[in-house]
Amino acid sequence: MLGEAGILPGDEVQQILDGLQQVEKELAAGKFPFREDDEDIHLNIERRLTELIGPVGGKLHTGRSRNDQVATDVRLWCRNQIDALREGIHTVVTALLDAAERELAAETVLPFYTHLQRAQPVLLAHHLLAHVEALGRDFDRLHDAAQRVNECPLGAGAGAGAGYPVRPERSAELLGFSQACRNSLDAVAARDFAAEILADLSLLMVHLSRLSEEFILWSSQEFGFLTLDDAVTTGSSIMPQKRNPDGAELVRGKVGRVLGHLQGLLTTMKALPLAYNKDLQEDKQALFDAVDTTQLALRVSAAMIQSARFDRGRMRAAIENRAGYANATELADYLAAKGMPFREAHTAVRQLVDEARAADKRLEELGLARLQQAAPVIEADVLDALTTAAALRKRAAPMGTSPSRVRAALAAARERWSTPPDA
Amino acid sequence: MLGEAGILPGDEVQQILDGLQQVEKELAAGKFPFREDDEDIHLNIERRLTELIGPVGGKLHTGRSRNDQVATDVRLWCRNQIDALREGIHTVVTALLDAAERELAAETVLPFYTHLQRAQPVLLAHHLLAHVEALGRDFDRLHDAAQRVNECPLGAGAGAGAGYPVRPERSAELLGFSQACRNSLDAVAARDFAAEILADLSLLMVHLSRLSEEFILWSSQEFGFLTLDDAVTTGSSIMPQKRNPDGAELVRGKVGRVLGHLQGLLTTMKALPLAYNKDLQEDKQALFDAVDTTQLALRVSAAMIQSARFDRGRMRAAIENRAGYANATELADYLAAKGMPFREAHTAVRQLVDEARAADKRLEELGLARLQQAAPVIEADVLDALTTAAALRKRAAPMGTSPSRVRAALAAARERWSTPPDA
Amino acid sequence: MLGEAGILPGDEVQQILDGLQQVEKELAAGKFPFREDDEDIHLNIERRLTELIGPVGGKLHTGRSRNDQVATDVRLWCRNQIDALREGIHTVVTALLDAAERELAAETVLPFYTHLQRAQPVLLAHHLLAHVEALGRDFDRLHDAAQRVNECPLGAGAGAGAGYPVRPERSAELLGFSQACRNSLDAVAARDFAAEILADLSLLMVHLSRLSEEFILWSSQEFGFLTLDDAVTTGSSIMPQKRNPDGAELVRGKVGRVLGHLQGLLTTMKALPLAYNKDLQEDKQALFDAVDTTQLALRVSAAMIQSARFDRGRMRAAIENRAGYANATELADYLAAKGMPFREAHTAVRQLVDEARAADKRLEELGLARLQQAAPVIEADVLDALTTAAALRKRAAPMGTSPSRVRAALAAARERWSTPPDA
Amino acid sequence: MLGEAGILPGDEVQQILDGLQQVEKELAAGKFPFREDDEDIHLNIERRLTELIGPVGGKLHTGRSRNDQVATDVRLWCRNQIDALREGIHTVVTALLDAAERELAAETVLPFYTHLQRAQPVLLAHHLLAHVEALGRDFDRLHDAAQRVNECPLGAGAGAGAGYPVRPERSAELLGFSQACRNSLDAVAARDFAAEILADLSLLMVHLSRLSEEFILWSSQEFGFLTLDDAVTTGSSIMPQKRNPDGAELVRGKVGRVLGHLQGLLTTMKALPLAYNKDLQEDKQALFDAVDTTQLALRVSAAMIQSARFDRGRMRAAIENRAGYANATELADYLAAKGMPFREAHTAVRQLVDEARAADKRLEELGLARLQQAAPVIEADVLDALTTAAALRKRAAPMGTSPSRVRAALAAARERWSTPPDA
Repeated sequence: MLGEAGILPGDEVQQILDGLQQVEKELAAGKFPFREDDEDIHLNIERRLTELIGPVGGKLHTGRSRNDQVATDVRLWCRNQIDALREGIHTVVTALLDAAERELAAETVLPFYTHLQRAQPVLLAHHLLAHVEALGRDFDRLHDAAQRVNECPLGAGAGAGAGYPVRPERSAELLGFSQACRNSLDAVAARDFAAEILADLSLLMVHLSRLSEEFILWSSQEFGFLTLDDAVTTGSSIMPQKRNPDGAELVRGKVGRVLGHLQGLLTTMKALPLAYNKDLQEDKQALFDAVDTTQLALRVSAAMIQSARFDRGRMRAAIENRAGYANATELADYLAAKGMPFREAHTAVRQLVDEARAADKRLEELGLARLQQAAPVIEADVLDALTTAAALRKRAAPMGTSPSRVRAALAAARERWSTPPDA
Repeated sequence: MLGEAGILPGDEVQQILDGLQQVEKELAAGKFPFREDDEDIHLNIERRLTELIGPVGGKLHTGRSRNDQVATDVRLWCRNQIDALREGIHTVVTALLDAAERELAAETVLPFYTHLQRAQPVLLAHHLLAHVEALGRDFDRLHDAAQRVNECPLGAGAGAGAGYPVRPERSAELLGFSQACRNSLDAVAARDFAAEILADLSLLMVHLSRLSEEFILWSSQEFGFLTLDDAVTTGSSIMPQKRNPDGAELVRGKVGRVLGHLQGLLTTMKALPLAYNKDLQEDKQALFDAVDTTQLALRVSAAMIQSARFDRGRMRAAIENRAGYANATELADYLAAKGMPFREAHTAVRQLVDEARAADKRLEELGLARLQQAAPVIEADVLDALTTAAALRKRAAPMGTSPSRVRAALAAARERWSTPPDA
Repeated sequence: MLGEAGILPGDEVQQILDGLQQVEKELAAGKFPFREDDEDIHLNIERRLTELIGPVGGKLHTGRSRNDQVATDVRLWCRNQIDALREGIHTVVTALLDAAERELAAETVLPFYTHLQRAQPVLLAHHLLAHVEALGRDFDRLHDAAQRVNECPLGAGAGAGAGYPVRPERSAELLGFSQACRNSLDAVAARDFAAEILADLSLLMVHLSRLSEEFILWSSQEFGFLTLDDAVTTGSSIMPQKRNPDGAELVRGKVGRVLGHLQGLLTTMKALPLAYNKDLQEDKQALFDAVDTTQLALRVSAAMIQSARFDRGRMRAAIENRAGYANATELADYLAAKGMPFREAHTAVRQLVDEARAADKRLEELGLARLQQAAPVIEADVLDALTTAAALRKRAAPMGTSPSRVRAALAAARERWSTPPDA
Repeated sequence: MLGEAGILPGDEVQQILDGLQQVEKELAAGKFPFREDDEDIHLNIERRLTELIGPVGGKLHTGRSRNDQVATDVRLWCRNQIDALREGIHTVVTALLDAAERELAAETVLPFYTHLQRAQPVLLAHHLLAHVEALGRDFDRLHDAAQRVNECPLGAGAGAGAGYPVRPERSAELLGFSQACRNSLDAVAARDFAAEILADLSLLMVHLSRLSEEFILWSSQEFGFLTLDDAVTTGSSIMPQKRNPDGAELVRGKVGRVLGHLQGLLTTMKALPLAYNKDLQEDKQALFDAVDTTQLALRVSAAMIQSARFDRGRMRAAIENRAGYANATELADYLAAKGMPFREAHTAVRQLVDEARAADKRLEELGLARLQQAAPVIEADVLDALTTAAALRKRAAPMGTSPSRVRAALAAARERWSTPPDA
């Protein structure tokens, strides 16, 4: 750019470019002679360049300041990390889709829960696809954040703009940015792009923590829905029977850390006058650790999902055994369909559930006679209506959990996620 | 929708619609008979509807659950609030652009600051445009958030999907959503859209706090750059001389509150298993208060900017008086342009600044002879190079603070912000 | 104080006191004529006083400023709230101790969990006493906070100290403070006492959330350890079988809110120069809502514990049924006691657990012969060692879960909590 | 303890102790052969001990579990760090007291500020002592936290208590704890002591940030109250005149980080069921980094204060020059003392200030005649009343800023801080 703009003569530009290629080789080979007292990477490179090509190396810095360079570096780093994070999400989603496909084929059912109480039957595939939706929004948020990251601060100088006829748009283009920043003071003072990424990662971690919480619950002896692979569990040095879901706990435990970094950076940015203040250097520690932590959580999540063995029998039993009464809504709906006002139907079923619970029976096991006594509109077809299969089939509208609908939803998700994240 | 899908017969639909219009009138007139024991707005309306049109009113609820209704309500509310918030940002930006235009015409200059130390001269218009850039990204972030808000959960039922052949896309369309949600469990369990809004508002408040901090600094006796209007200042009951920048402090002080709501909701969402949990109702308190607080901050900010009287003389003096040495960089650049290596030039100027500071003089007041003694390359044209006008003119590349460049930047910003926010 | 210090003559003091008693009566009777444009409570009272007793009412304000008055008011409020919060904790603890006593008498056992995996048998009373310990520290923290709250800012004036020979220690004494503040600037600028209370409440809420999480888990169909009272559960408008643990979810959900207030106030206080800034008024909203929220959580927690019915059979079954193997550690300890190195014993038991799990048997059901084959040191007494009673008895050292030890711990806790909180 | 309790025979105890002394030497000499696959420090030591003394080394672990050991280690570490942090605070306070003493001797005055507007004259020593008060509460809070840290979890085993007749009180005594924990489940599940420390450090950092903010303001060209030492400032690679207050910005910028750790750990702890969960290991990263960060901030703060050179002339000028009118309150008080109702006096002075401001004069420079015209009660002694010395003298009540009072306050503070922190 400095050459094209006529700020430096062509031969000096060539010398600098040759020198920088040498520097790049040294860096790639791990042989670059870093010096602590050169303060940062820019001064190291400038010093080394000058050693290699003489005083003209000092012209590398023409029209630049540490303020705009640092802002540029952080944005370049963020851009690459966003790509990598989206790859990581893509891997988790693929694992979820693969699992959903397997479990759809196996017709695996389980109750979904509200308030951690059994609610109604759903296909496990439907449940897994719910997580795909949430991760899809995280994926999109990072895409949106990338648009704001992708502006190049070079040319802002220390804050007032470079004192040379630089061409910021050309610098931006050469570095793969979509455009240059528009205001020099903002270019060196802004860190909202960093906080936005931390907010996106916080939500992503929250979503992963919800999945992890379910895996922890499901792998307890009480639920027994899931056996986790040895790779994501550990034993106990004392208790020989233990298979602790360490991977899932790690993901859940680390949410706090990422949330903390978000809060920390927002607090740091609060009430800073323009333009650059040293406080802003805190962005790096927060970003580095938050990205590392989230990438770890994505890898662990993917491994957990890929290797999870679902206990299909236990899941089905949670619908159909003598607790939970996940088909109670079906009975109320049945009554309503036969013309009983829904509030009345609700009350009648509630009483039947209480009675069945006291007798340790399923609703069906109360017998047709007893059911009819409670609600004379009941006919023999009620027994079919109370089956898990009927409950699923009935939810065939869009969003719902019927097998055909879930099959279509899975296909649509496969289609949506078929392109690689950086395309 | 229920009529179109054949779930309810046409006459019942008509009765319900007529009844709802009556309810709407009562609500508009403030005459709707709310009852506390009806728990929420849905049950109040259903009860009132039934009073008005009889038992068919109960069919309003067909295919719906409180879980999907509540999620729908919150999203509708968020959508409207986002529009209003973007209007609020637009008003602040317009105030900034108007001020920039006035101050550009007056050629108001001030030093920009890094580390709260005077750095180099900039146009005040340039400084104000920096804030416009930051607010522009907040404006865009809310736009992006609106895309994710704008999906309709109706049809999710309690979580497994409605037990009727509902048409969620049609419900979405009728309510002005861009589409229906895709998965019923996700539809009732997701609150990331709410947290995303809180994150966007946190960043917006951080940006407003940076502006407020500057207004507080600038209206101190030490800076004296700014006189705030009586409407945004208050006196003291004890100290008769006080004009406290209460408006700016209010904005700055309330950042914490919005950040707290963000953190609170993220914490609440952490590790909740699917689908709905009562914890999620905490979204409302956080959203309501964060939106109110941010709207207040936007209104106060707009009022402050609109009525601010900048002390152009004091601002210029901060560049040109015997402190700060905001033209020291110009001298170093001058030397470099004359062929002195920049590091040497930097050292020479640093010594001259020390000497001038000790003698309580401006750099120019050291005299040409002394300057030339320090650096023989100096010629008489140095005195022009050290003027504020020259320093500004030199920064004519894109992003920079030269008058022509700022004029162009202002025009471009006017163009960008000419369309109303909801267009 | 103003009279005793000779600042106001005795007759004026008497007039003011008489007038204030009248004001107090009006306030108590809800008849005080508040005026919005009097800004705050102090100006309302002074205006009303002047209406009642004439211009001498204006002397109420002598030697005071809004800055020291506001700080005094907030501290008085905090002091009272701390007492009330400690009462609230005391009530929850009493409920826990009562439950522990009942369950100790019933010898209720359950596995404790690490990583949500069954670990070893404990007495339910022991488990409940663990929560008492945590709440005891919250109780103590609030006591410590009260020491710092309990300093009186009156006499600081606007910040430099009163311009009259006031006696701050006497004001402090009359208002029941333990002492006066020592520095006028600090007296009006400090809000760490408020943030400290919010930190204490955050930890208290975290502790209540851990208890609530257990109650939510335990009242799931999968655990089935607990039936919550109707007063703290709700049904579903759709699903007739539901008994949602709303109370516990409310407590858990509201942690975020209190944490948010803590974070908000800390953020607000960050980097404020001395002395008073308007930002500090944000302390009140945060304190008021955090205290209300925590008091609500304490009341709900107490109600939940008082009315909880534990399913002793389900709890014991979680130790003794064919899953969990909560006595595996006992077997390893048994082997170690017989001289087998612990690491070898651990390995042997792990294999036996795997075998038993595959065969859906308890360890004991593998038969003595099989056990002896795995570890020849085993003798017939192993079957006793594997009982729940033996496992409990063995943990008779201080801190442990043996019945005698828990009995002593409960008695000691009763003793410690016997004095009322404000004693 | 194991020997005293008769759990291990004396000769084995002796072997273990001898071996551990050898291990200690190896650790001290940096020659301990750590192995990554030994997972943690406990397993490393046990393995090495066994290499040194044979199989009896395995008995080191008798009656212990990783759960209680880890909790013990963290508490030991916290106890030591609290001592070190209190030392750090003590050093900062001493620097403040030394500076206060110097500036008291020099009778340095400055206006104190409310709302960043000049309020009234105070002694700089008085201002510095305000910071001492705040830090004193941080010092006390850490003392209180130490009481809760100082309980020993050893004997809790994995959570149910050790399966041996251990003596937890003796372990506590040997390790210098004030007592043993009282409940085994709580002993392994509690981390509130860690979060409490983070809350205390957050407040400490907030207090340091308030001091730093003042140092940043004061070292701006606009205030000019302070010259910071080269050791805590840096220059700019571009702008030769810059002396950036990097040290103060570092302290201010790092508040966010510590607040983030607090928030992170609280979030992590939320809703974890008892007893140990892997999530809790997140306490260490948070504690380590928060303590390191705070120690750094304390060191930087002490260095800043110790080397600060206050510009006494500029500070006095901020009271006495033609802006700010820091003696306006004195004039109002003077009028009130002469019998004019305070509200009238306040209004009269406000008008005089406006007039003086417009004429760019000090109040005194309006002339006695003009003053008397505004308020006939004024006599010639008003000119003395308007001096800075008179304003200070008048605030001689406790808490106030009169020289004699500040001298006494300084002496009292010296006395209070004379004992070393660990005494």
